[in-house]
Amino acid sequence: MRVKLVVAYDGTNYCGWQLQNNGVTVEEVLNKALSDLCGEPIEVIGASRTDSGVHAYGNVAVFDSNTRIPAEKISYALNQRLPEDVRVQSSEEVAPDFHPRHCNSRKTYEYRILNSSFEQPIGSRYVHFTYRQLDVEKMQEAAKYLLGEHDFKSFCSAGSQVKETVRTIYDLAVTKNGDYITIRVTGSGFLYNMVRIIAGTLMAIGMGEYPPENMKDIIEACERSAAGPTAPARGLALIGIEYEKSPI
Amino acid sequence: MRVKLVVAYDGTNYCGWQLQNNGVTVEEVLNKALSDLCGEPIEVIGASRTDSGVHAYGNVAVFDSNTRIPAEKISYALNQRLPEDVRVQSSEEVAPDFHPRHCNSRKTYEYRILNSSFEQPIGSRYVHFTYRQLDVEKMQEAAKYLLGEHDFKSFCSAGSQVKETVRTIYDLAVTKNGDYITIRVTGSGFLYNMVRIIAGTLMAIGMGEYPPENMKDIIEACERSAAGPTAPARGLALIGIEYEKSPI
Repeated sequence: MRVKLVVAYDGTNYCGWQLQNNGVTVEEVLNKALSDLCGEPIEVIGASRTDSGVHAYGNVAVFDSNTRIPAEKISYALNQRLPEDVRVQSSEEVAPDFHPRHCNSRKTYEYRILNSSFEQPIGSRYVHFTYRQLDVEKMQEAAKYLLGEHDFKSFCSAGSQVKETVRTIYDLAVTKNGDYITIRVTGSGFLYNMVRIIAGTLMAIGMGEYPPENMKDIIEACERSAAGPTAPARGLALIGIEYEKSPI
Repeated sequence: MRVKLVVAYDGTNYCGWQLQNNGVTVEEVLNKALSDLCGEPIEVIGASRTDSGVHAYGNVAVFDSNTRIPAEKISYALNQRLPEDVRVQSSEEVAPDFHPRHCNSRKTYEYRILNSSFEQPIGSRYVHFTYRQLDVEKMQEAAKYLLGEHDFKSFCSAGSQVKETVRTIYDLAVTKNGDYITIRVTGSGFLYNMVRIIAGTLMAIGMGEYPPENMKDIIEACERSAAGPTAPARGLALIGIEYEKSPI
């Protein structure tokens, strides 16, 4: 059977999702725990290959197994074998052809910023701190240009191999609650570092480095150098992924 | 001059506030950083001696110094000398006789609980997790008995040397937001482990171990064994302390 997992993690101590040689990744600890639990070698397929230090409330992974453990019980047994900064939130059987990256989906990310004179130690793993004052209204105005279907090449890190850089942003909200600013973005998919570059560009606009209307030119430039810096990983969290049709 | 600091910390890696021989405390790192900054030996007086693992958004400390640094600038210079899990939120000059424990004050604490099937790694340092279902309405009903002036001896850890165990609780709210339950309590002062014993007792009632009305008998018993268990430290945070009159 094919099983779908919803996975939450504190990314602070991981070199991101995807397997690699020079550090522990979330994919690696999942593969180990699942292979141990099911008694056969298991390799998960992840939906979103989050970067080093990025967090997730609801990343999605699937795997195939011959285990007799009922799919919905796997989450309980698996969590006992996982380190405490990774927790599966649910497990369910899905159709054998369900692929978490090849199905149409909407992904939601949040980028959180603390904008105050001093850092706040409580929760600092999940927030990017800046003492430079951000004008939220300017950030909101600039965000509007990003809505809809665009070529987001300006918001893709230079190292990426992706050829097709057109994506759709369905929703992008910048909200303020006390000293905390949250950028919440939902899209059809995101290029490498895209949310962090959007956050970095919105922050540059919030700091008054250039006016909100420049966002239009930045998109049209289709060049990474036109956009702002890549915001640090710790402020970013993958909230969840919704699939167009029910997975089974 | 006497300077008042508002201090925030993630208590996870500290053996509480108060100086001790077998571990690093918040008081210790403050004394070191202040002595270094002011060029004279400095010892702070803290308002609340929080336990090992307990967090604070706004604990209060005062110290006396001959430094020429203006009081309100000390926070900036001090934060550069502090570890990243301790951050001073403000510094100001106060009257030389202001003592953070001997002035009338209202302290507010929050105890946070995640009540769901699975733990959530993001923010787990600041939350107590239980999968046993809690009835929030029962907890709210039981909380009402604690309001006002009472002898809270049943809610004081046996190790405490305190003789006067009468305290006043001004406000005690149990609220639910998604899977998170927050117990927010404001009082004239709290006995050793009092908030954690209140939280543990409210949880026992929420789990149905005894009915809400038993809270009355628990208070009247004036005996630690009558109340529920001491809830774990990680869920507790000192929100802030308000003093009756302005400190200067």
